[in-house]
Amino acid sequence: MKKNAFYAQSGGVTAVINASAAGVIDGVAETNEIDKVLAGKNGIIGALTEELIDTSTFSETTIELLKSTPSGAFGSCRYKLGSFEKNPKEYERLIEVFEAHNVGYFFYNGGGDSADTCLKVSKISDNLGYPIKAIHIPKTVDNDLPITDCSPGFGSVAKYIATSTKEACHDVASMCKTSTKIFVLEVMGRHAGWIAAAGGLADEPSGNLPIVILFPEITFNEDKFLKKVENCIEKFGYCCVVVSEGLRSSDGIFLSEQGTTDAFGHAQLGGVAPLISNIISKKLGLKYHWAVSDYLQRSAGHIASKTDREHAYAVGREAVKFALEGKNSVMASIVRVRNDPYEWKISSVNLDEVANVEKKLSRNLISEDGFGITPACRNYLEPLISGESYPAYNNGTPKYLTIKNKLLKKRLLKEYLI
Amino acid sequence: MKKNAFYAQSGGVTAVINASAAGVIDGVAETNEIDKVLAGKNGIIGALTEELIDTSTFSETTIELLKSTPSGAFGSCRYKLGSFEKNPKEYERLIEVFEAHNVGYFFYNGGGDSADTCLKVSKISDNLGYPIKAIHIPKTVDNDLPITDCSPGFGSVAKYIATSTKEACHDVASMCKTSTKIFVLEVMGRHAGWIAAAGGLADEPSGNLPIVILFPEITFNEDKFLKKVENCIEKFGYCCVVVSEGLRSSDGIFLSEQGTTDAFGHAQLGGVAPLISNIISKKLGLKYHWAVSDYLQRSAGHIASKTDREHAYAVGREAVKFALEGKNSVMASIVRVRNDPYEWKISSVNLDEVANVEKKLSRNLISEDGFGITPACRNYLEPLISGESYPAYNNGTPKYLTIKNKLLKKRLLKEYLI
Repeated sequence: MKKNAFYAQSGGVTAVINASAAGVIDGVAETNEIDKVLAGKNGIIGALTEELIDTSTFSETTIELLKSTPSGAFGSCRYKLGSFEKNPKEYERLIEVFEAHNVGYFFYNGGGDSADTCLKVSKISDNLGYPIKAIHIPKTVDNDLPITDCSPGFGSVAKYIATSTKEACHDVASMCKTSTKIFVLEVMGRHAGWIAAAGGLADEPSGNLPIVILFPEITFNEDKFLKKVENCIEKFGYCCVVVSEGLRSSDGIFLSEQGTTDAFGHAQLGGVAPLISNIISKKLGLKYHWAVSDYLQRSAGHIASKTDREHAYAVGREAVKFALEGKNSVMASIVRVRNDPYEWKISSVNLDEVANVEKKLSRNLISEDGFGITPACRNYLEPLISGESYPAYNNGTPKYLTIKNKLLKKRLLKEYLI
Repeated sequence: MKKNAFYAQSGGVTAVINASAAGVIDGVAETNEIDKVLAGKNGIIGALTEELIDTSTFSETTIELLKSTPSGAFGSCRYKLGSFEKNPKEYERLIEVFEAHNVGYFFYNGGGDSADTCLKVSKISDNLGYPIKAIHIPKTVDNDLPITDCSPGFGSVAKYIATSTKEACHDVASMCKTSTKIFVLEVMGRHAGWIAAAGGLADEPSGNLPIVILFPEITFNEDKFLKKVENCIEKFGYCCVVVSEGLRSSDGIFLSEQGTTDAFGHAQLGGVAPLISNIISKKLGLKYHWAVSDYLQRSAGHIASKTDREHAYAVGREAVKFALEGKNSVMASIVRVRNDPYEWKISSVNLDEVANVEKKLSRNLISEDGFGITPACRNYLEPLISGESYPAYNNGTPKYLTIKNKLLKKRLLKEYLI
């Protein structure tokens, strides 16, 4: 009897994670060795609570729409499995559910924490005797997974941030004569500055736009920063700052968590963009505006990168192949074959080399003054934001899929409470 | 000898104001009665300082690129002319510059404050004897100009906000099981809630998304708001709030008042999203995220509305016709001929009926509970965000025009200092 596959989405969602889901579904559909893809509602939680969605009922149209729908169509979760020693009941329950639904393949789609979950599940075979092939499908807007050349989800955020930064530069350039001279855009990336770096792609290599990037990898130096801003104002009349939410002061504390107050003594309600704006306003007396894109940057299906969507689909589809080749405890990884023209392929890497490791920007990717990207960084990033992949529209807004999430009938009597 | 036309951009810029510039340039090119379009650098300031750009040197490619470039390509300004009685020197200078460059037509592209400037210039003919036809070309993301059915610039912001709200809803729906349950998006619109209303277009008419809109027209009632949010959480598990920067408390004060004012003396706002998030967090104890799009919403050429861009181009082109018909002191206004299928035309309206009047949302466009839009509002808004008008891309980001702004040689000896 053919086994079923379990697929689920975990951690912060992206503009293209559903393309990975479609990759798994298509990959399974074209083999005779796996029966159905059962998607877990809300990640691993769905496997514990036996909340499963039978994707074999999806029409071709649904799968097409899934490919271009941002967010996690099956629901995601922030939930880490405990160790087997501390929480054996969780593993026993997983095996019960897998047995009840004849699951022999486990595809987990997420970032570093999710790789850890996938690694733990992959050990069920050896440690608990229930045969399963567990494959990790990478996804994270932060681009901080190691080994893989990049992480699906990142390219689309990078395209959004590069485009938005360019558009903001044009806007402020128009206004700076009599009004706003400073624009500060806060971007995601708590520990790694990949998204912040994407702001540098708004500019030409020759440097025609006054963009100042504040990376989490570079300790914030107020004096140096203000001098840089002043130089931009002198040369261009305006300045756009792209600041990572993870910017830290020399004491190692996030600037956004320093409990500072605004000019009127009100506590800052979070957000490093208003904080940086305040510093500029107080010290340089320049009129500013600021923006915080937050979730908008990672859910922006309307400006997804074509390359990123292709990556996301491919890691899903190849993960199925790896499972059929008998691999367990691996991640589908993107390999850059060459840069110009850009070529890539998927290979498998051992999951224990991936889980819980964060890849940050190396110093050679950040310009000498610490406020920009180097040509090497541009060469790395540019292919990842390349190409447009527009969704269909209906009455002026994108047509996205909402899966009704009709759950499979439960086969176990016992409820499992999270 | 044929006269030249002066064209300039004023106030906050938009994703499509440059399409209006292209409309004027094309309109002038196809008539034999006007020589050149001289664009003012930084709005009316360019006319005072004699900083003029000769657009007759632009190639067809440049004009095509201008149409799809957001922001004000010639520079904008926040600068109001004084009254003739108080500041006669400004008017004398304008006439000097107009005479020196043989300007007989004045096209001013802006919102309510700019309409006032255009109105003042239009009176130069009668009051000071210098013959000029002054035509106002409407533009404002706030959509608060009276008489015209809508204002170019608004449709594109509305499309951006509707799309972003939809994408954020999908994102939070994925996360709400174990993480974020509240997302708050702050949008522009100081006094009029048109942009906030666009958040309602993210949803289907049947109401499948938990979107709560906070309009500047509806006094903030914390208890009522928190109840509405709780209802959404109960029904959907999450809630997306779209809040106008102009939200006021019952004492009439902006919730986000920063204490600073812009060049026109208007209060500068920003930061109501974190404030609303804080209220929800304190009172309901729910995990939240918030975003402030700020300039990104109005400069988002990458998701401009096709209808909006067509409107913008048409008001520029028709403005030229009105001038040639001998009209003075009028605005090119958009008239909705019918709704389904959407048809529109341009007519001229008297400028003194436009200047310094703000059009807000009437109560029948806001749902009874004050937190959503009515079917009438949807019918009004939907055509304005209809159709996509994508820019060309180069290396992953939109290809936008940067005009080198090579200025015409000055003909006056006297410098004029602003």
